[in-house]
Amino acid sequence: MLSSDGSAATVDGEAEMNSGKLGQEKIIIDTDPDDSMAIFMAFQSPQLEVLGLTTIFGNVTTEDATRHALLLCEIAGCPGLPVAEGTPEPLKGGRLHVADFVHGSDALGNISLPPPKSMKIESGIRIFWWIWFLNILAMRRDSSFASKVKRVVILGGSFFALGDVNPAAEANIYGDPEAADVVFTSGADIVVVGVNITTQVKMTDADLDELRQSEGRHAQFISNMCKVYGDWHVKSDGVHGIFLHGPVSFVALVQPDLFTYKKGVVRVETQGICLGHTLMDQGLKTWNSSNPWSGYSPVSVAWTVNTDEVLNYVKQLLMKP
Amino acid sequence: MLSSDGSAATVDGEAEMNSGKLGQEKIIIDTDPDDSMAIFMAFQSPQLEVLGLTTIFGNVTTEDATRHALLLCEIAGCPGLPVAEGTPEPLKGGRLHVADFVHGSDALGNISLPPPKSMKIESGIRIFWWIWFLNILAMRRDSSFASKVKRVVILGGSFFALGDVNPAAEANIYGDPEAADVVFTSGADIVVVGVNITTQVKMTDADLDELRQSEGRHAQFISNMCKVYGDWHVKSDGVHGIFLHGPVSFVALVQPDLFTYKKGVVRVETQGICLGHTLMDQGLKTWNSSNPWSGYSPVSVAWTVNTDEVLNYVKQLLMKP
Repeated sequence: MLSSDGSAATVDGEAEMNSGKLGQEKIIIDTDPDDSMAIFMAFQSPQLEVLGLTTIFGNVTTEDATRHALLLCEIAGCPGLPVAEGTPEPLKGGRLHVADFVHGSDALGNISLPPPKSMKIESGIRIFWWIWFLNILAMRRDSSFASKVKRVVILGGSFFALGDVNPAAEANIYGDPEAADVVFTSGADIVVVGVNITTQVKMTDADLDELRQSEGRHAQFISNMCKVYGDWHVKSDGVHGIFLHGPVSFVALVQPDLFTYKKGVVRVETQGICLGHTLMDQGLKTWNSSNPWSGYSPVSVAWTVNTDEVLNYVKQLLMKP
Repeated sequence: MLSSDGSAATVDGEAEMNSGKLGQEKIIIDTDPDDSMAIFMAFQSPQLEVLGLTTIFGNVTTEDATRHALLLCEIAGCPGLPVAEGTPEPLKGGRLHVADFVHGSDALGNISLPPPKSMKIESGIRIFWWIWFLNILAMRRDSSFASKVKRVVILGGSFFALGDVNPAAEANIYGDPEAADVVFTSGADIVVVGVNITTQVKMTDADLDELRQSEGRHAQFISNMCKVYGDWHVKSDGVHGIFLHGPVSFVALVQPDLFTYKKGVVRVETQGICLGHTLMDQGLKTWNSSNPWSGYSPVSVAWTVNTDEVLNYVKQLLMKP
C-alpha cells in the first residue's frame, strides 16, 4: 500500500469536470487490489465516474497489483480504463510487508485467472499527476497539490482499537507509515475509515450464498474470490463470514451519512514497537505545550457505522444485474 | 514517577506477614506524592497496613516528593512510617518531565506547609528491597523479584483513549517509559488503572463542599490542597471539579469489584511521537507472526468502573472522623 490501499480520491480538476456526465463524481481508486469488491461496486455506481485505478503493494507487490487491476477492469467490462502503477516500495525504502496469506497469493482468492490483455499507462499523462499524490511524492514536490483533490477517502488505520497486523498497527498503514503520515498531515480533505469500523460490518456465509444465487453482474466472480478470504477469517479471528474493509470505506465515499465522524489531527508512528499506529487527537483537551499533533489540519475519522444499512447497500450494489 | 506514581503494592513476604495485624493486607505506596488523597485513604482503611511510602519524581522532583511524603505521614499522625527515596531520574536518564502546574509547585496545592520533622530511611533495610522493584532496578538485578510481590496496582497509562500529557501519553508513564515497560512485562501480578478510567470519576465542587463541612480527619487539609488542582482542571479540560486519579486507583486495590477488567499484554512505546503510549493486546486475534507483545504475561487492565460507588467509597473514607 501507499497512502493506503482502498483509497478513493475524488478529483475536482477543471479538465476532468468537462469530460464527466452531469452530476457524476469523478474518482480514482488506489488499490492492492484486494479491494475487488469495492472496485466492482464503484463500476456499478451510476453517480460515479471512475477515472482510473492506481496500484500499490499490500497484499501483493505493486507489479502484481497492476496486473490484477488491469484484469479487474477487463472483467468489469472496462478494458480501456487507465491503470497507473504506483511505487514498488515504501517511502523509506526497505522490506515490503506483503500479506499474501489474506486473499491468496494473487490477492484475488487464487481462482486461476488469465493474464490481462490491456496495458498499464505511463504516468506522464496529466490526469495521473495525482497518482503522485497517493504515491506521496507529489506532496513533497508540490505542497499545493493536496488542495487540488476534492476529497480522499482512506481505508486504513485503527482508532482507539487494535490493529490487524499486530496490536498497534493496521496493515495498510503498516505497509508505509512514513507515507501515511505525510498524507494525514497534508491538509487535504481526508475521510479515514479504520478497521475498528470496517470490522463491524460482516458478510455472513448466508449473505455470500444470497450473492451467489443473485443476478449480480459479477456475483459469481466475487463469491469465488471470497473463498480464500473467508478461510483466513476463521483462522485469524475465529469469525465465519468476511469483513468488508474495502466495500465499507467505499460506502463512506458514496453514502457518507451512513457513518458518523469525529474531526481530529491524525499522525502515524514511524518508529518503535508502535510502528504504523494511527493516533488521533480529538481536540478534547488543551495541551500544556505543543506536541507532535500540534498545528496540523484535522481529518474526519469514521466513528460509528450503521452496519445494517451499509451491508444492505453493499449487497444491493453487488446484486445489481 | 517511576513505574508510576500512585502505585500500591501488596507485599507477601514472610517477615512482613508476621508483623501485621490479623487479616490486614500490607501495602507500600509509591508516589509523587500528588496522591495525598489516596494516601490519607490508605491510612483510614482498617483492612490495610501501610508498611511505608516510596517516592518518585512526577509532579515534583524525587527529593521534593520525599519531603512531602514525610510531611503527609506526620499530618496523618504516622510520623514514624518509613519513607524511602526513589531514583532521581528516568531509567534511561535525561530530562525530567516535572508537571508542577497540575498540583502547584509543591504538589500539595501551594498551601504553605512546614518542613517535615522526620527523616527518610536509607534503602538498605530489608523490607525496602522492594523499593527497587518500583524503582525497576530490582527486576534487572533479581528477575525473581516480581513473584515476591503479591500484587501491584498501577495508576498510569491510557487504554484505547487519549493521554493527558499529549494525545499519545499519560503523565506517569511518560515520565519514564522504559521503566514502565519493564514493570508491565515483569510477570508480576499487575492491575493497571488508566486515566481513561480515572477521569470517569469526578469530585464536583458540591462534593468538595460536603467534604469540607464533614468531620473527616483530614477533610480540611484535603479541601485546601485541592484548590490549585481544581483550577487546573478548568484550564486543561474545561471541567469544574477534580478527577480522582489516585483515589480511584486506590479503590481498585481495596474494592476491586467496583471495576471490571480485561486481561492482556501491555507494552509501552519508548520511541517516536507515541513515546509513553500504553498499548494492550487484548488477545482477540491470532497474529500471523510474533510481534513485540508476544510471549509476555498478561496484566489486568481496568475496563469499566462503577463511578457512583467509587465516588461514594472515596467520600465515605475521607469523611470518616
